[in-house]
Amino acid sequence: MALRSVSIIGIGTTRFGVLEGQTIKSMAVAACNDAIEDAGIDRKQIQAFYLGNYISGMMVGQETIAPLIADALGLRKDIGATKVEGACSSAAIALRQGYLLIASGVYNVVLIAGVEKMTSALREKTTASLSASIDQETEGLSGLTFPGFWALIARAHMHEYGTTVEQLGMVSVKNHLNSMANPRARYRNAVSLGDVMNSKLICDPLKVFDCCPVADGAAAVVLCASDMAKEYNPKRVDIIGSAQTTGYSTLYAHKDITTLPSTVLAAKQAFDMAKVKPGDVDVVELHDCFSPAEVVDSEDLGFFEKGKGGRAVEEGITQVGGKLPINPSGGLLAKGHPTGATGVGQIYEVVKQLRGEHENQIRNAEIGLTHNAGGTGSVCTVHILRRV
Amino acid sequence: MALRSVSIIGIGTTRFGVLEGQTIKSMAVAACNDAIEDAGIDRKQIQAFYLGNYISGMMVGQETIAPLIADALGLRKDIGATKVEGACSSAAIALRQGYLLIASGVYNVVLIAGVEKMTSALREKTTASLSASIDQETEGLSGLTFPGFWALIARAHMHEYGTTVEQLGMVSVKNHLNSMANPRARYRNAVSLGDVMNSKLICDPLKVFDCCPVADGAAAVVLCASDMAKEYNPKRVDIIGSAQTTGYSTLYAHKDITTLPSTVLAAKQAFDMAKVKPGDVDVVELHDCFSPAEVVDSEDLGFFEKGKGGRAVEEGITQVGGKLPINPSGGLLAKGHPTGATGVGQIYEVVKQLRGEHENQIRNAEIGLTHNAGGTGSVCTVHILRRV
Repeated sequence: MALRSVSIIGIGTTRFGVLEGQTIKSMAVAACNDAIEDAGIDRKQIQAFYLGNYISGMMVGQETIAPLIADALGLRKDIGATKVEGACSSAAIALRQGYLLIASGVYNVVLIAGVEKMTSALREKTTASLSASIDQETEGLSGLTFPGFWALIARAHMHEYGTTVEQLGMVSVKNHLNSMANPRARYRNAVSLGDVMNSKLICDPLKVFDCCPVADGAAAVVLCASDMAKEYNPKRVDIIGSAQTTGYSTLYAHKDITTLPSTVLAAKQAFDMAKVKPGDVDVVELHDCFSPAEVVDSEDLGFFEKGKGGRAVEEGITQVGGKLPINPSGGLLAKGHPTGATGVGQIYEVVKQLRGEHENQIRNAEIGLTHNAGGTGSVCTVHILRRV
Repeated sequence: MALRSVSIIGIGTTRFGVLEGQTIKSMAVAACNDAIEDAGIDRKQIQAFYLGNYISGMMVGQETIAPLIADALGLRKDIGATKVEGACSSAAIALRQGYLLIASGVYNVVLIAGVEKMTSALREKTTASLSASIDQETEGLSGLTFPGFWALIARAHMHEYGTTVEQLGMVSVKNHLNSMANPRARYRNAVSLGDVMNSKLICDPLKVFDCCPVADGAAAVVLCASDMAKEYNPKRVDIIGSAQTTGYSTLYAHKDITTLPSTVLAAKQAFDMAKVKPGDVDVVELHDCFSPAEVVDSEDLGFFEKGKGGRAVEEGITQVGGKLPINPSGGLLAKGHPTGATGVGQIYEVVKQLRGEHENQIRNAEIGLTHNAGGTGSVCTVHILRRV
């Protein structure tokens, strides 16, 4: 079928970090109100609300948060408010629901948000909650957690392609450097390669600076059919590619653990749909939950040949000012990772880039890409945006 | 926009009850395989998977279960597998996503399921988990749980309309009588009005038999564009009405606590869309999580005048063989309530009715309705089905 063009006409967000006194509801309401104001619409025009969230039940004992937030926002009562969950892809999946329902003509205006409250939970609860997207009947039962998951992948990548621990560390150095200018980031200090290499060992070869921090935060966007978007915010950005795929739920099912097939598949779908190639992309926000993830993802998305992702970081290709800037926001590693909010948080950053309003502005950025690998890569989302 | 007609071409389910040794994954896989087989399709034809689930994270520590189940089912990897959560409406919301995406032409074949694993959790965990759809910043904090929520509503209804505790008890008597013939039900024994009235007091005026039991279980359906459905299962049932609305997240926000506005709104939407009236409906499966809920819902859905729901039960109107049979499956009160599965479980029961295959068959049933009120009525879903 022919899909209509869909635009992002409003964006809003909280800072990502330790937001004391802020709740799921207060953060999501703040981000949504920002996005609605930015869009210049009346909230009664919103025809559906999709919310990404991963673990609000396990972390803070609150579920059914989509209607809770919709009620607090004063949205219309005759519309649906729906939470979607797909681990770290949750918010991007919410975006995709809104995209599909506008593109197919069901709705004209949809509000999308993502939210997570993480820093008020006990540390033990945090680990158990984050591990909830590992299959608890198999690898979860045997004690695998995500630092272990990505450490195994890092080791395999180092063995297979000669990627070095220093190259992994450089991902963290770059992303911390980027976050210094980003007022929305949890960490805003530079770290040196020495800092990374000498930081606490978490799961060999990953040190603490190779691991993203948890955070509280929310982000929101207003989607609108492009042919109506002109009436509202003139700074609209179009969604030209949207993909969601499914991967293996366990590491042991992967034939090759240096790649996540769901990312390869989602990238192909999104690029085909957008009718652009990896070389056309000006700015990328991808899922660097751990430093090796940025290396693996940058290859799986088609930006670098398999095995060359580590060298690309070392050569400065992925820094702001490089040929392909990756995570100029600071990424998950430095901006922070409020799991259920991250997908829309990335969209916020890329829209700022495409509007020419970003603190780490990529000159003349026209096309941007966002990527999330949820869980063990069991779910993946890729979106491609274009400046109008 | 003009929506295409959508049909249910396959149904599957587990029994609802204490399913020892069964997991989220094993139950959902069993129900989905049944539905796929019933539909007579190849699973590679499925273009999206939507799963309803409420509290798998809190109850069994497993999230991101939609891709987990999709992987175990051997679905295609280039499609999305998405969990949606809206308390006790979760599975019906999943159904609605599939409905909208087929109706609007995005997909032709979508698999929908709902699942919950409840009986293996500690009792304290169960109460905390079920209460997670109450606003934890307000009424949750003050100690309100769902038995209390419905007890308050029951008292108000009794005060306002003269509804009696005996009438509430008769809801339970009827639904237990219905479940005796239903091999999918948790409870299959008759209870007398005396049994109900003398059962343990939970929250005045509600006794234990006025409260639905938790359960493990899964249910699934295959949706297909009606114009393609003829090729598959000849016993297709069409979805002629689908609505999802938002309500108040707290009881104190309700002006009148004898009614849930989200149900009134959803019913109006679904009836308008289906172009039928309450009097046209032959069989109903509605959300009797507590006996007063059946009374209130039956009024809010438009089947009885406000305040007359209790009398309707007493007069036998809602029993099998009555003018409007409600919950011939046994309902949540006797079939059981695996929260995230219930919405699709109701669809299973109504499709069996419309196919003429039900154990408590309503003669010549042509039009059926399902209803879920999630949380505090903060989310509501209504679906209307018609035999082809």
